[in-house]
Amino acid sequence: MAQKPSIPKGTRDFNPEQVSKRNYIFDTIRTAFETYGFQPIETPSFENSETLMGKYGDEGDRLIFKILNSGDYLSKANNAAYSEKDSNKLTPSISEKALRYDLTVPFARYVVQHQNEIEFPFKRYQIQPVWRADRPQKGRFREFYQCDADVVGSDSLWQEVEFIQLYDTVFSALKLEGVTIKINNRKILSGIAEVIGASDRLIDFTVALDKLDKIGEEKVKEEMLSKGISEDGITKLQPLFTLSGSFESQIASLKSILNTSEEGKKGIEELYFINKAISELGLSTATLQLDVTLARGLNYYTGAIFEVAAPETVQMGSIGGGGRYDDLTGIFGLKNVSGVGISFGLDRIYLVLEELGLFPETVAKHVEVLFINFGDKEALFSLKAIKQLRLQGINAELYPDAAKMKKQMNHANKRNIPFVVLVGEQEMESNTYTLKNMISGEQDKVLLEALISLFK
Amino acid sequence: MAQKPSIPKGTRDFNPEQVSKRNYIFDTIRTAFETYGFQPIETPSFENSETLMGKYGDEGDRLIFKILNSGDYLSKANNAAYSEKDSNKLTPSISEKALRYDLTVPFARYVVQHQNEIEFPFKRYQIQPVWRADRPQKGRFREFYQCDADVVGSDSLWQEVEFIQLYDTVFSALKLEGVTIKINNRKILSGIAEVIGASDRLIDFTVALDKLDKIGEEKVKEEMLSKGISEDGITKLQPLFTLSGSFESQIASLKSILNTSEEGKKGIEELYFINKAISELGLSTATLQLDVTLARGLNYYTGAIFEVAAPETVQMGSIGGGGRYDDLTGIFGLKNVSGVGISFGLDRIYLVLEELGLFPETVAKHVEVLFINFGDKEALFSLKAIKQLRLQGINAELYPDAAKMKKQMNHANKRNIPFVVLVGEQEMESNTYTLKNMISGEQDKVLLEALISLFK
Repeated sequence: MAQKPSIPKGTRDFNPEQVSKRNYIFDTIRTAFETYGFQPIETPSFENSETLMGKYGDEGDRLIFKILNSGDYLSKANNAAYSEKDSNKLTPSISEKALRYDLTVPFARYVVQHQNEIEFPFKRYQIQPVWRADRPQKGRFREFYQCDADVVGSDSLWQEVEFIQLYDTVFSALKLEGVTIKINNRKILSGIAEVIGASDRLIDFTVALDKLDKIGEEKVKEEMLSKGISEDGITKLQPLFTLSGSFESQIASLKSILNTSEEGKKGIEELYFINKAISELGLSTATLQLDVTLARGLNYYTGAIFEVAAPETVQMGSIGGGGRYDDLTGIFGLKNVSGVGISFGLDRIYLVLEELGLFPETVAKHVEVLFINFGDKEALFSLKAIKQLRLQGINAELYPDAAKMKKQMNHANKRNIPFVVLVGEQEMESNTYTLKNMISGEQDKVLLEALISLFK
Repeated sequence: MAQKPSIPKGTRDFNPEQVSKRNYIFDTIRTAFETYGFQPIETPSFENSETLMGKYGDEGDRLIFKILNSGDYLSKANNAAYSEKDSNKLTPSISEKALRYDLTVPFARYVVQHQNEIEFPFKRYQIQPVWRADRPQKGRFREFYQCDADVVGSDSLWQEVEFIQLYDTVFSALKLEGVTIKINNRKILSGIAEVIGASDRLIDFTVALDKLDKIGEEKVKEEMLSKGISEDGITKLQPLFTLSGSFESQIASLKSILNTSEEGKKGIEELYFINKAISELGLSTATLQLDVTLARGLNYYTGAIFEVAAPETVQMGSIGGGGRYDDLTGIFGLKNVSGVGISFGLDRIYLVLEELGLFPETVAKHVEVLFINFGDKEALFSLKAIKQLRLQGINAELYPDAAKMKKQMNHANKRNIPFVVLVGEQEMESNTYTLKNMISGEQDKVLLEALISLFK
């Protein structure tokens, strides 16, 4: 029976042009990862449910796609849950596997599982899709790629320095100039919370502070008050709201705010070290900026926090992010492995490059020449030439049918194939090829050698 | 709570070496696909269940991984099925999506869904993972990649010719010489069945014939008899069992067997055409062989049937296969679109290359040089050089910590990094780098320019 075909909401088909453009971004990121010494790993698309569940909070658990067990799965269904018709309670008994929700938890699992084969510090990258049962909306999909690079097994700050360079390298290679790499440090946020007497309200405090850009100073203060942060504490925060100027001058202001917090001072030291190194090394096209309001997945990060903003001419959320985490592998039983990593947001980078017209014209490896098919004899003659072209790495093809010439020419035009070759009796006799430029209309009789050297 | 980490059975983690080797195969196939004019598409990992169900037979339906609906899925459960605790009947009401089982059905869905944007004939390739809830065993996995190239929208036999060339191109590029490309034609099989009066037993007949290699002539005859094929018919088959010699002489024998079957004669014509073209064009390292016992997914193919066998020195099933199908898109409502395609078996090709030692030594893009870290000043100095190396595309890195020299040297050895650079006070003063060859132990003081040109 004929069905009207469609795909699940939040998923996408990619046509040849889109795949080529996406691969251009992937290849650029991959090349940069490798020059920085990162090595690729891949993990399965689905993991045992217990590997993923409970790692992303309640909301995360809900957004994880679960895979139904095969066969007569109801025979092992939890009886109580079944009679209560309780979906949540039933799930673990009828579903043992779940689709990867991000690349970080599978990476942690990988490190612990393979700890005896891994030489630490371990620099790995991973470019694979992840799945989330999120409400689909513009720019948010249920299947999307993550591109992650992480180092585990060392707490050296040189890694933070190198990740900033890596961001700069990738975006410069993509010709996306003017991105801002924002940096903050969990220790700064903890220090501030400590200073204002809100250590026990660190999350509330940072969630409110994170909104400064969007809702402004007054609203942020109101929210903090409503969350139980004292008037006195908020007054102490005042310098934070007006923090501006160079990285160095901001650090100076932070020093005066945080002079009573050991943790805060440690955070300042780290920021100072990183900024000094980057100043000495230089960035090609990106700018490093201190942003004390930056929090991201705070309960996760323990040191540096990164986020990359697209150039100001484009309206777009962050196109990258990351940070240091000190106990990622602890959940799987391997303690005291410090890690730091960054991620690139493929879909948003794609949109930004598209909007700014930054994809190279040659990004899609188009067919360079189509041989018109005038019949079996001519086709065979053509295929002999095509074989030689392909051996030289030239994308060439034969129109498969001896269709009307106009139809074949139209096909070349519709596929943006810039040249066609016509081979008739005359050409076969003289061992030549009539080459037609589809843009200028110019036509030339050439030998095979000339044909090859034209396209090489 | 610490969990002992593991992955679901039938799935795999890939370490850096394995990923690099797999990518080497993917890249080789992709490059060949593109020189032959195929364009990449990608489809979502999961499809609506109705897109997949019923397309692969009952066994296929069972092997499709179903995704549990999100949220309170039981609220929409089929009541009758729920009270009967009937898993099969319940599934459609609690699962609307399923993981891709192959790339062919999603491709058919894609073609029908996007038929107005596609310029036919449409040559597409697709390299993506598929999932099957099969019993895992040696060489059979629940997640594995397929690499498919298909043309739809033309019934020209030149495509069969080009696919044979494409197989030859890929395996030659992989240095896997001596593969056998077996070819058969559905019309030959139908013709034989017709001639022996077993047209209504075509499947039984071909299933038995397919076993000739494994169980031998007598057992095949017994099986045919037991399936109701007449003694008389089997006698007529006799020449088939002893079919041997060149492609041409086999075709001559087939002609005498099939002289009363129109369909059989059409099949012979097609084989003749394809073989003649291939003889004229030549293959680099593969051999084309007629194999009348070849059936594969018979109810699916309507013309040519392909299968590729690894060189005889390796014990391995087929490493590729394909054929012509005349109504793939019909299931989604688009009639009369002929197609033909082939597939490469990544996992088996990997095993064959591994067994024969055919992976190039340079397949993993290793780090070429590690800078030893003697402290922050030296590290900064080193990173300035590393930055220049990376700009030239050289994979270089700094050991992140100022650990003991022996530890850092061991790290280079364990990771097979062939060179280290030592930068101490002396080097910083003289703006030089001490380069040590980790294999020969040789040591040299060089300038940055020399360092760069060494690795370029």
